[in-house]
Amino acid sequence: MRGTDGIIIDKLIFADWVSTVERSMMREMLSICAQPDILSFALGLPSNELFPNQSFGEVAQEVLAMDRFALQLGPPFKPLKSEIVKLMKGRGVDCQEEQIFLTSGAQQGIDIIARMFMSKGRAIAVEEVSYTGFQKAVEPYQPAILTVKVDRKTGIDLDHLETIMSCDPKPAFLYLITDAHNPLGLSLELAKRKRLVEMARHYQVPIIEDDAYGFLYFEDGPRKPLIAMDKEWVIYVGTFSKILGPGLRTGWMIVPPQLISKLSSIKDLIDIDSCTFIQRVICAFLEKGLINDHLALLRREYRRRSELMLDAMAKYFPAQVKWERPVSGVFIWAECEANIDTKKLLTIALAEEKVSFLPGIVFAFQDNSFASRSLRLNFTYCKEDQIIEGIEKLARVINKALKDG
Amino acid sequence: MRGTDGIIIDKLIFADWVSTVERSMMREMLSICAQPDILSFALGLPSNELFPNQSFGEVAQEVLAMDRFALQLGPPFKPLKSEIVKLMKGRGVDCQEEQIFLTSGAQQGIDIIARMFMSKGRAIAVEEVSYTGFQKAVEPYQPAILTVKVDRKTGIDLDHLETIMSCDPKPAFLYLITDAHNPLGLSLELAKRKRLVEMARHYQVPIIEDDAYGFLYFEDGPRKPLIAMDKEWVIYVGTFSKILGPGLRTGWMIVPPQLISKLSSIKDLIDIDSCTFIQRVICAFLEKGLINDHLALLRREYRRRSELMLDAMAKYFPAQVKWERPVSGVFIWAECEANIDTKKLLTIALAEEKVSFLPGIVFAFQDNSFASRSLRLNFTYCKEDQIIEGIEKLARVINKALKDG
Repeated sequence: MRGTDGIIIDKLIFADWVSTVERSMMREMLSICAQPDILSFALGLPSNELFPNQSFGEVAQEVLAMDRFALQLGPPFKPLKSEIVKLMKGRGVDCQEEQIFLTSGAQQGIDIIARMFMSKGRAIAVEEVSYTGFQKAVEPYQPAILTVKVDRKTGIDLDHLETIMSCDPKPAFLYLITDAHNPLGLSLELAKRKRLVEMARHYQVPIIEDDAYGFLYFEDGPRKPLIAMDKEWVIYVGTFSKILGPGLRTGWMIVPPQLISKLSSIKDLIDIDSCTFIQRVICAFLEKGLINDHLALLRREYRRRSELMLDAMAKYFPAQVKWERPVSGVFIWAECEANIDTKKLLTIALAEEKVSFLPGIVFAFQDNSFASRSLRLNFTYCKEDQIIEGIEKLARVINKALKDG
Repeated sequence: MRGTDGIIIDKLIFADWVSTVERSMMREMLSICAQPDILSFALGLPSNELFPNQSFGEVAQEVLAMDRFALQLGPPFKPLKSEIVKLMKGRGVDCQEEQIFLTSGAQQGIDIIARMFMSKGRAIAVEEVSYTGFQKAVEPYQPAILTVKVDRKTGIDLDHLETIMSCDPKPAFLYLITDAHNPLGLSLELAKRKRLVEMARHYQVPIIEDDAYGFLYFEDGPRKPLIAMDKEWVIYVGTFSKILGPGLRTGWMIVPPQLISKLSSIKDLIDIDSCTFIQRVICAFLEKGLINDHLALLRREYRRRSELMLDAMAKYFPAQVKWERPVSGVFIWAECEANIDTKKLLTIALAEEKVSFLPGIVFAFQDNSFASRSLRLNFTYCKEDQIIEGIEKLARVINKALKDG
């Protein structure tokens, strides 16, 4: 190998978009957060100590003992689809098995949808700050990105969206997070949901509804996702990552049944099938009702941690920093009213206080002053005392930056 | 839902290649073969009753008991890379951890490589009959497909390949199976391997070497794959599907280290990461040395089944059908010297004798008379008595077709 390093890369011809592709900030943070001495508010990961390792292990062994097909390749596991239908009832959604498409997690769902709809340069609509993995998924198509304004308190600006949806040519789809918004931590009000669905129908622009965190609500009677209102123009993306384990890479979509065969053909060429063994174990876990207790635990625990973080923020953060109380999910978005560069802030926070968060700008598609002066804080990964300690440390960094600013 | 069925599909605009994409024959066969009353020689699947369910279950439970990160998202699991380096030594390959890229199986490896290299319409080189999943993986790019002639006894025609590689513009890469060829069942002779590597260097065309079945050799001192001879121009695709379980969807690639960051960026947008839980379980399975006994069992058992099938073919098949004895893998390719359409033959075989195989034409990229009159037979999925019974049944169908023909 030595002596030839670096030669081949210059001689190979890559697809044009590949030459500019970069590692996602998410990946970098994954490595940083794996360091045990960093207090991480950066990623949207479940808390390590809350994973149901024991029951999951018992179920896995049972499946392997009873099912000779457990390690074999097979069609997408139908009984899991049936369990997902039941699970969705708890989210206020009536759907049927023939609408369920199994994936290797939400990211793959988004990638498959992008593959299905996107031709090079086609337009898409997305909020001005949104999930970074979505930005990545559309990169190969070098799309025209139509960003929709958002408000920190109320979310997507629907008048602005209406302007964009009525453009010609119209966007291939709108990508949206209705509940437990990533990164804003918001949950849209009912009137907005109704108008969104009406607009999708009227302008015939499908909405890709990413509900990665939607099951993690803190109050009774949570709002229903858009898919509960329209099963024609809404494509729902769900995942077991945040309610069971992101290491399982298993998720689902709810789509019009007529799309299933197209999606299957695309999945054939991507990876043939998701891990059918894991599908079987998750299915057995759901059949035993173990998910209900686990979800109740997560909701209780995450709510408590969110309150701890909110209290600490109120106590330590300077008055120029503003935020909303989340009713679900794992994030709080904090906007600094003064002009501050939170990307620089992160470098200082890591170096001086060993605490991490994600700067708002990583969620934006272009220069964005609202995003540049904001931070996304996760409250689920750290333990209680770490939350308070981390916010206190972060407050020191912010106060210093404001003073120096 | 009722009343609106079928409307949305007409109103949506898909990527152009999606409108013509079809379910793969493989998928169809997967459903057919899941029917318990069909004797299946169709797919390249491991034998159900040979899966190491018990030991795998014990290892899985151990991992979950000892590792709080087992269900968490994390960077690709480095200890597994180190185990793969050891595993590759048993294949005659010296490599290093920094050359290993983990995937969700060989199909994903191929898809990622296609994504990395392919722009719309770019040319690729491939044998005239080859793995169907490769055909699928390049479909989105609507490539110019340069097919290289093959011989049933000796495999790829290197003089023809040389003509293709010296074309301008040259192909993005050559996709090739060196050992346990799918569908031909062949293993290339050493002289051909040497010339292949020399040609890749000379013409600067990378070779994608798919080694899905390469570990399943029946004789001592098996031939080394191309990656053992060149680590610059050969990209090796490996998988645990055939040596452990295809339901695990876990594989690897061996690539020049300078390509790893590009591959990681592409994987980020595809599915963030493969199932890290399964990576940990497979790693522990390898660390305990359990793979060695399992591989020995598979080699012994598959060899025996191949001999049973060969004997039955010699006994029952008519003289116009010719085949080679495989030294590795799971397939026998049988060519009928008389003009016979094996696709029609499959329909009859399923209807009249409830026995399946794959007609050669599914492995061809275009009309191909060699492929049309050939069959691919798998000898690992069925049990011993089923192998003999199935070949006898199939012989009846072939004999009848030749008589009627």
